[in-house]
Amino acid sequence: MIIVVKKNCEKSQYDSLVDWIKELGLDVHVSHGEMSTVLGLVGDTTKVDIDLISTLDIVEKVQKVSEPFKNANRKFHPNDTIVDISGRKIGGDYFQVIAGPCSVESEKQIVEVALAVKEAGATLLRGGAFKPRTSPYAFQGMGVKGLELLLKAKQETGLPIVTELMSEKHIDDFKDVDVIQIGARNMQNFDLLKQVGKTGKPILLKRGLANTLQELLMSAEYIMSEGATDVILCERGIRTFEPTTRNTLDLSAVPVLKNMTHLPIVIDPSHATGVAKLVEPMSLASVGAGADGLIIEVHNDPKKALCDGAQSLKPEQFKTVMDKVNLMLPIVNKKYI
Amino acid sequence: MIIVVKKNCEKSQYDSLVDWIKELGLDVHVSHGEMSTVLGLVGDTTKVDIDLISTLDIVEKVQKVSEPFKNANRKFHPNDTIVDISGRKIGGDYFQVIAGPCSVESEKQIVEVALAVKEAGATLLRGGAFKPRTSPYAFQGMGVKGLELLLKAKQETGLPIVTELMSEKHIDDFKDVDVIQIGARNMQNFDLLKQVGKTGKPILLKRGLANTLQELLMSAEYIMSEGATDVILCERGIRTFEPTTRNTLDLSAVPVLKNMTHLPIVIDPSHATGVAKLVEPMSLASVGAGADGLIIEVHNDPKKALCDGAQSLKPEQFKTVMDKVNLMLPIVNKKYI
Amino acid sequence: MIIVVKKNCEKSQYDSLVDWIKELGLDVHVSHGEMSTVLGLVGDTTKVDIDLISTLDIVEKVQKVSEPFKNANRKFHPNDTIVDISGRKIGGDYFQVIAGPCSVESEKQIVEVALAVKEAGATLLRGGAFKPRTSPYAFQGMGVKGLELLLKAKQETGLPIVTELMSEKHIDDFKDVDVIQIGARNMQNFDLLKQVGKTGKPILLKRGLANTLQELLMSAEYIMSEGATDVILCERGIRTFEPTTRNTLDLSAVPVLKNMTHLPIVIDPSHATGVAKLVEPMSLASVGAGADGLIIEVHNDPKKALCDGAQSLKPEQFKTVMDKVNLMLPIVNKKYI
Amino acid sequence: MIIVVKKNCEKSQYDSLVDWIKELGLDVHVSHGEMSTVLGLVGDTTKVDIDLISTLDIVEKVQKVSEPFKNANRKFHPNDTIVDISGRKIGGDYFQVIAGPCSVESEKQIVEVALAVKEAGATLLRGGAFKPRTSPYAFQGMGVKGLELLLKAKQETGLPIVTELMSEKHIDDFKDVDVIQIGARNMQNFDLLKQVGKTGKPILLKRGLANTLQELLMSAEYIMSEGATDVILCERGIRTFEPTTRNTLDLSAVPVLKNMTHLPIVIDPSHATGVAKLVEPMSLASVGAGADGLIIEVHNDPKKALCDGAQSLKPEQFKTVMDKVNLMLPIVNKKYI
Repeated sequence: MIIVVKKNCEKSQYDSLVDWIKELGLDVHVSHGEMSTVLGLVGDTTKVDIDLISTLDIVEKVQKVSEPFKNANRKFHPNDTIVDISGRKIGGDYFQVIAGPCSVESEKQIVEVALAVKEAGATLLRGGAFKPRTSPYAFQGMGVKGLELLLKAKQETGLPIVTELMSEKHIDDFKDVDVIQIGARNMQNFDLLKQVGKTGKPILLKRGLANTLQELLMSAEYIMSEGATDVILCERGIRTFEPTTRNTLDLSAVPVLKNMTHLPIVIDPSHATGVAKLVEPMSLASVGAGADGLIIEVHNDPKKALCDGAQSLKPEQFKTVMDKVNLMLPIVNKKYI
Repeated sequence: MIIVVKKNCEKSQYDSLVDWIKELGLDVHVSHGEMSTVLGLVGDTTKVDIDLISTLDIVEKVQKVSEPFKNANRKFHPNDTIVDISGRKIGGDYFQVIAGPCSVESEKQIVEVALAVKEAGATLLRGGAFKPRTSPYAFQGMGVKGLELLLKAKQETGLPIVTELMSEKHIDDFKDVDVIQIGARNMQNFDLLKQVGKTGKPILLKRGLANTLQELLMSAEYIMSEGATDVILCERGIRTFEPTTRNTLDLSAVPVLKNMTHLPIVIDPSHATGVAKLVEPMSLASVGAGADGLIIEVHNDPKKALCDGAQSLKPEQFKTVMDKVNLMLPIVNKKYI
Repeated sequence: MIIVVKKNCEKSQYDSLVDWIKELGLDVHVSHGEMSTVLGLVGDTTKVDIDLISTLDIVEKVQKVSEPFKNANRKFHPNDTIVDISGRKIGGDYFQVIAGPCSVESEKQIVEVALAVKEAGATLLRGGAFKPRTSPYAFQGMGVKGLELLLKAKQETGLPIVTELMSEKHIDDFKDVDVIQIGARNMQNFDLLKQVGKTGKPILLKRGLANTLQELLMSAEYIMSEGATDVILCERGIRTFEPTTRNTLDLSAVPVLKNMTHLPIVIDPSHATGVAKLVEPMSLASVGAGADGLIIEVHNDPKKALCDGAQSLKPEQFKTVMDKVNLMLPIVNKKYI
Repeated sequence: MIIVVKKNCEKSQYDSLVDWIKELGLDVHVSHGEMSTVLGLVGDTTKVDIDLISTLDIVEKVQKVSEPFKNANRKFHPNDTIVDISGRKIGGDYFQVIAGPCSVESEKQIVEVALAVKEAGATLLRGGAFKPRTSPYAFQGMGVKGLELLLKAKQETGLPIVTELMSEKHIDDFKDVDVIQIGARNMQNFDLLKQVGKTGKPILLKRGLANTLQELLMSAEYIMSEGATDVILCERGIRTFEPTTRNTLDLSAVPVLKNMTHLPIVIDPSHATGVAKLVEPMSLASVGAGADGLIIEVHNDPKKALCDGAQSLKPEQFKTVMDKVNLMLPIVNKKYI
């Protein structure tokens, strides 16, 4: 940590600051410049309150040098984490495609879609049983019944399932789910993060609409601080001023995260754009950017979907996306299984 | 709801769309223009999926005409809601100031600060027992013990208390709290919103960092749909590209919300800016904008505060803010009690 | 254009509004709903002031139905515009790569880089003679002398040149330049747009950091309204809250623009990210998204570059990018020439 | 400037970096920490390319310690700049109100509005002769003829005039204008900034929609580097995701700028919000935040205004705003003249 002290500050204040830092068990290295003096703090600075020091009259600026995340940090874990979900590997050279409907609606529907996406090449099944909806009057999902139907679909197809948990009180209902998804709106629901971290299951953690990549990794850190190792990060669009897409897909996040962390990163082009015909180009773009996987909404009858129909592909459209994705994978050194 | 249909679309597709709308129990009014045809949907359109219709080939655009919130809507409740907290009224012509430390740290600390802010003119006491922190390694608050200390401070000063609930599992511990705060990160934790809506207590709902005013009202609607009537909205800064303040305080939100809803609106200049010396000007600005109250961080010894020291005022600084705020209130037709 | 009138408005006000619209030469179609009345305006609504009508007491909302751009609109020009720059075609199935240094620094430098990028596969040469710099104390470019050196490099390599014009007063100096670039900061310098529109040359128009795609097309419309037809749009990142990249590259802009307009779209991954090692993944992502070309900064000695060194590739790194781009082009049905 | 070097970097690379810095005439102070080494650069670092150093393999981070603006910097000019416009002072304790129509439309209109705003208490007259419009098909202003009419209105009322210059080629036409306005879209039209800096006139510089406060000050620096001293900064809203207001008025900018610079700051609530009824609350909020003035759109007949009618007040509404503003000024220690 670096503290820039104002020029011509009172000696007593300066001495008191330096003493206070030393009391925290840190070493201080001093550089006197023309306009200011710079203090370099050496030691464990994780407990120094950067905002508090900024507020002191004699301080011009404080800057962190090291990142505040550890378990998720590539510096301390240089090798890629490869998450193994019943034999499907994700991360490193491995790529997977998670597909399925926005919501589980009936046994017939979820089994049909599961068969269709498996046929087209998807390797995991997604589907919402608990749905986060902006309006209390909108369809909130089938709940526990929806989880049962997802497990039926898994039985029929062999596809592992990925589905969202919204509340700690349902955590026991998710014991047979393969990957627990934490949605964008709950990215900083810290109590929920701690709870899912205790399950030991793979967690798919979606980036919040206004969260930085460092905050995403801090939320991964919450999960990992409870013992979990298998966190899959998911970029699904951030909020900007541009109105033509629901959110703005931040694909630079992929190579930036690859540099910061060893965890795998998947992209959700369906929720990011909110428009079915943007899913193909943004899926190919995601592969180009180096993503470790895709999560795509597919529906057997978009016109009748209970939610988010506009962003769902029909199975035949999904097949076309998969065919092009598969042509691209060798160029970026990615493969399945 | 308005649907704009493309010019020269196939008649069969057009007819199928119109039939489908009528099946939903809605009337359709048609205007044929030069470049497009406009369908006006009349009836209860809350269940029409706007995103789904947008996706149809023949549709150019779909636009909602009416807002999706009801209980919080000024159209249906033209009079200001005035929330009464043990005799302190907020909303309409009434103004209140909630003050106190970021975190409860000890009995001595919270009682001292409570006495100091009461002396300076604060009418409610705030203080965090459960703290949402970005890092799992940062101080997470005293928890239930902190709630007890807040109640001690209430006993000593008579100030009603406002404090944040982060998880459904602690809801019973909040039974003696006067106002339950829902933090910005939990604004769309829909399960938590429903639970606090059932308590019947006044709820202080903070706007999320990237949430629109309509989404804030939809979250208020979640709370009110469970029977609650006393929701106090709180603007505390939104996320933008400007780096000099922690967030960008959106004061236009005050008059805009006043137009959309009958609920009271308070401003948190401490968290919005993150800088103690900005609290005075932004408090006066908030009063000018028409806010119904302020929520301000005050600490007896900012240098030792366990969190957010940089944004806390000393009691004597808070007194100066209060004196100027009190001079301004008559100009905007606001008063205490 | 759609006007939503409030329920229970006074009849005299309503009649006066309808009369006023008819005075503008427009037809009005009326739908009476339960909560509001909707007026559909038919005719040339380009001169109706949407903001003005919104301000009337009886009006709840006004919404445009048709886009305000014409020459740039795909509806009126369904076929892709293919810009031909001395035989290099861009748009439709054609793809080009524009490469070169941030600034022209010397004859030796620009010729060397031009030879290197041509060797690696670039098909046009970029280089700044006039440089927009945030600070008045930073290097502002070689000016007219820089243009001469670019023409030397063109002579040596045969590569057409693309370079930025910042002021109307230099427009005559650009008569031998192949493509005039308008930078992001000048996207809404309307006088400059009109002037370059009169040259008849191809114009590369960069999106402003906070401009919507519709505003980008309105600026293209300014150029085209003076007679120009060959406008190449360029996405180069928008401003968001995320600090790890200089800007956030908005790749969804590619398929969205393809739907709105017939003009070609190129991506500038160097300026968007500001980081050399992000150029390769974001170039591949751009191809995946369907871009018609790339504009990439390449320097022979990044350590000595006078500006923007951090985002420039070395020629050998650029060669690697080109090799992978070329493998991807057939998958998205793109080719050179 | 601070350079953080990675732990365990090669000694030869490290030495080469240190040597290179010394070649630039700077001193280097070194602190060896556990995870990294920190270099403190002492001397004139304005010419060190921060982006270039960031790109070096062994460098983890580079951070500037001092601001890149000088003439506009409060550190070097601690006293407030007070701009005197024909006896109206702005800055320090002095406050002014600039009012008038969006566009000059006729002699009758501009003189009538000028008389009305003077009567209500405005101290300077605004009005657009050259109008920046998003669409080439919208009314672009009366041009030079409009300037003449403004001067007529000045003659009738004695109010100094403030009007926008959009292009260097019209600079001579502005010789009798009292304050030249540079619009938000031209904030980084660097050639224009240099030209107006040479006139010696007071310049009203509007913040761009996506520009940081530091960039605003860098643009002021462009003007001041040509000799001008009288720059008035203007906040007029920034672009965010919130759709209910045209822009988001960033009032924290006032106290933040007051800390960074000695230049006066005025607020434009009309353009920031785009809604007439928000002008009063946001004007009062601006005064509370400590602004040195307001710039407000007033029109004699908003229904017929050629542009931006929705945000213009009628003279009687403007009078109400002025009355409340005048009540507030003593509370924030501001006065006229």
